[in-house]
Amino acid sequence: MDHSSPIVPVIMAGGAGTRLWPLSRDTMPKQFIALLDEGQSTFQATLRRVAARGFDRPIVVTNHDFRFICAEQMQGIGIEGDIVLEPERRDSAAAVAVGALLAHRRNPDSVCAVLASDHVVTQEEGLLDAIREAAAAARGGWIMTLGITPDHASSAYGYIQPAEEAISGRARAITRFVEKPDVETAQRYLDEGYSWNSGNFVFGAELMLQELHAHAPEVLEGARDALEGATRDLDFLRLDQASFARCPRISIDYAVMEKTQAGGVLAAEFGWSDIGSWDSLHAMKAKDTSGNVLEGDVRAIDTTNSFVRSDNMLTTVLGLDSAVVVTTHDAVLVAARSHVAEVKRLVAQLAGEGRREAGEHLRVHRPWGWYQRIDIGAGFQVKHICVKPGGVLSLQRHFHRAEHWVVVRGTAEVTLDGKVALYHENEAAYIPVGAVHRLHNPGKIDLKLIEVQVGSYTGEDDIVRIEDVYSRG
Amino acid sequence: MDHSSPIVPVIMAGGAGTRLWPLSRDTMPKQFIALLDEGQSTFQATLRRVAARGFDRPIVVTNHDFRFICAEQMQGIGIEGDIVLEPERRDSAAAVAVGALLAHRRNPDSVCAVLASDHVVTQEEGLLDAIREAAAAARGGWIMTLGITPDHASSAYGYIQPAEEAISGRARAITRFVEKPDVETAQRYLDEGYSWNSGNFVFGAELMLQELHAHAPEVLEGARDALEGATRDLDFLRLDQASFARCPRISIDYAVMEKTQAGGVLAAEFGWSDIGSWDSLHAMKAKDTSGNVLEGDVRAIDTTNSFVRSDNMLTTVLGLDSAVVVTTHDAVLVAARSHVAEVKRLVAQLAGEGRREAGEHLRVHRPWGWYQRIDIGAGFQVKHICVKPGGVLSLQRHFHRAEHWVVVRGTAEVTLDGKVALYHENEAAYIPVGAVHRLHNPGKIDLKLIEVQVGSYTGEDDIVRIEDVYSRG
Repeated sequence: MDHSSPIVPVIMAGGAGTRLWPLSRDTMPKQFIALLDEGQSTFQATLRRVAARGFDRPIVVTNHDFRFICAEQMQGIGIEGDIVLEPERRDSAAAVAVGALLAHRRNPDSVCAVLASDHVVTQEEGLLDAIREAAAAARGGWIMTLGITPDHASSAYGYIQPAEEAISGRARAITRFVEKPDVETAQRYLDEGYSWNSGNFVFGAELMLQELHAHAPEVLEGARDALEGATRDLDFLRLDQASFARCPRISIDYAVMEKTQAGGVLAAEFGWSDIGSWDSLHAMKAKDTSGNVLEGDVRAIDTTNSFVRSDNMLTTVLGLDSAVVVTTHDAVLVAARSHVAEVKRLVAQLAGEGRREAGEHLRVHRPWGWYQRIDIGAGFQVKHICVKPGGVLSLQRHFHRAEHWVVVRGTAEVTLDGKVALYHENEAAYIPVGAVHRLHNPGKIDLKLIEVQVGSYTGEDDIVRIEDVYSRG
Repeated sequence: MDHSSPIVPVIMAGGAGTRLWPLSRDTMPKQFIALLDEGQSTFQATLRRVAARGFDRPIVVTNHDFRFICAEQMQGIGIEGDIVLEPERRDSAAAVAVGALLAHRRNPDSVCAVLASDHVVTQEEGLLDAIREAAAAARGGWIMTLGITPDHASSAYGYIQPAEEAISGRARAITRFVEKPDVETAQRYLDEGYSWNSGNFVFGAELMLQELHAHAPEVLEGARDALEGATRDLDFLRLDQASFARCPRISIDYAVMEKTQAGGVLAAEFGWSDIGSWDSLHAMKAKDTSGNVLEGDVRAIDTTNSFVRSDNMLTTVLGLDSAVVVTTHDAVLVAARSHVAEVKRLVAQLAGEGRREAGEHLRVHRPWGWYQRIDIGAGFQVKHICVKPGGVLSLQRHFHRAEHWVVVRGTAEVTLDGKVALYHENEAAYIPVGAVHRLHNPGKIDLKLIEVQVGSYTGEDDIVRIEDVYSRG
């Protein structure tokens, strides 16, 4: 085995969670949100972290729905990588299989570092050291889990019991995995030197494929066929849907780690959090002298140990302790910190009612930019539309609405029934009902326009796409 | 004295409080807000209540700033009255003096019922009975206060000690007024038969003028001169500013009630509340089985004894007890019910910072209708404008912005540099920078339009009013 082969980061970015709702939603999950002070998402932070000596070009495994956010965020920090699109969610074993197969194609001696993209790490060097040390063990034939040395008896994580004897350095063989315990059991685990299972792994691609073949052959076959049938779509590698759907929905822990004889754990501390709830976000952020984390346009009086964030309007808090208050453009959450686990149930209830807010933000990201509804009423709707330089909306028509476009910034190239014209700031275009039209930003700065739709029906589905550079249906 | 002379309701509607912020604001105080289920304001409910047998045309005393809201709300319930405009706030003695003077002009034998417009009364007949009974005592030469029979030892109200002997029926002479006590003292007052001072009065106009002359001559003289110098402005009687400013700022309690020998109190129960805080609003509303009052687009899980209201976006609450959550278009308040008295301090702090939200709503009421900002950014602003049938904006021009108007409902008559044209739904008008223009709704239904302003400065003060049917500066 070539000990100098670089480590291939496999970034897992396909998950969608509701535990940080209303900020995190199905269409914009937490790994893509700037939850931390640096103004970058944990996905971006994860990528930057492994843009280091000894690491290869990253492989990003994400969901088809997140492809444009993903590409935009990578572009935003100037990091390139291979973006693999899962047509649907099949849990972590399938994603790990895809990552191992691609790394193996690059070099059969590849060592993969499978990293969650929605975790926070405050001690980056500590994580890199742990990965490098785990990689050394991996080159010696171990499938390594990054364990976290617990700082309290948490019942929120699974635990890993290490063997007595060391493999090398901090690496130990795994004696057993245990599910999330109650707090008393957790304290015993802590006393006995167990570590938390962080869900980050380091292994030789070859060995992982062997173990998948032995313990989860259907996952491996589905992933292999999905890659063989994959198609290029712009810069993305889109896995074959039918093949990928054959992968059983199973986590890599169940599929391989609990069965393999080669499982190892390297326990370390590197300021880790999986920010699995508003409470854990509060726990990991710097607090003021009252124990509060206050973000955005927020005022708090007689308030303690609370997390208050506003992305939008003035949010005021009086006389609360241990509360979470989150204001977004279209939803407000107020919760006792002790009840944040119930956010999941709340969002499920909202989804059951068919509420858009359960899964979608008011600002909708598109490959060409974004739009956001700013007003709606009987017979009309108003949107703020932003088109990135070079962005092109599909050639389209509507049967139930006319549109008035007022350019407030930049320049628009408007195609209307075959004729092309430029509109500058403070100019307005009118798109009659039924007219075939296209909007394009030919300039160097963002194009911003206000769209006033007038018609008896202004739903998103009143659209016929005649042509689309982004290959959408 | 003519015992059949009608009672003249004098409605006090000039106050502005912050204790129900963010719903109640300086420019839209709580008496004009539909706080109750019936969809009408307490001002409207007060007027309807005394549109009864034995009551004369009401006199409404309000602030100049509220004249259009006031007129609109009276029109909304089809009740006419005399609207007197105070050019500034001078506390209740001056307003009572004005009311008594006007009632005296109608008939020297008038009996006035001075009623707060921001109180809730759930037993209307009980109040009317109390007023009629108090009026009988007033005709016998007493200045009556409506007292409330306490149902608990509250420290939030001033108390009135009645004399042992009755004037007639429930009416008693007043022994003394006492300030808000602590809870132990309040309990003693309750045991000894004191009543709460509700701030509602019934008296003969002639006697009140005599007592003002004796005890607060400056108030009476200021009020008299302000009425003599008053001008008609549309349907309003605008008091003379310089004269009115000479009235000392003093309450009618201090100016007259605590000094007169003719003070009487009639204690009654009629489901009264002065809704002086979010907590008292919670107290008086019907609650669900968890003790919650939930209004608007609200979801609450594991939440008890709380008041949650949203006028706007989805508002969710998890695991709170005894909390107040109020979401409006531009501000959110989250408070422990035990801390609602601090709302005043919060709003003062916001006002000190120069925050618009402290005193103004996003929707701004005008004599012709209203407007509301729906988006703002560098170089542009978008407003939703609603013009009532017959409403006319001033003839105006702007130096820094052009305006695009898209009619989404109704018909607009647009005057532009002297030319008049009609615009219907789905038609757009363009107002260049500097153009003299006017907007008018000539139709029978509300005119709604979306205004997109484009320019380097979009502040409200970039306006030159050339002509205004509502006599604004």
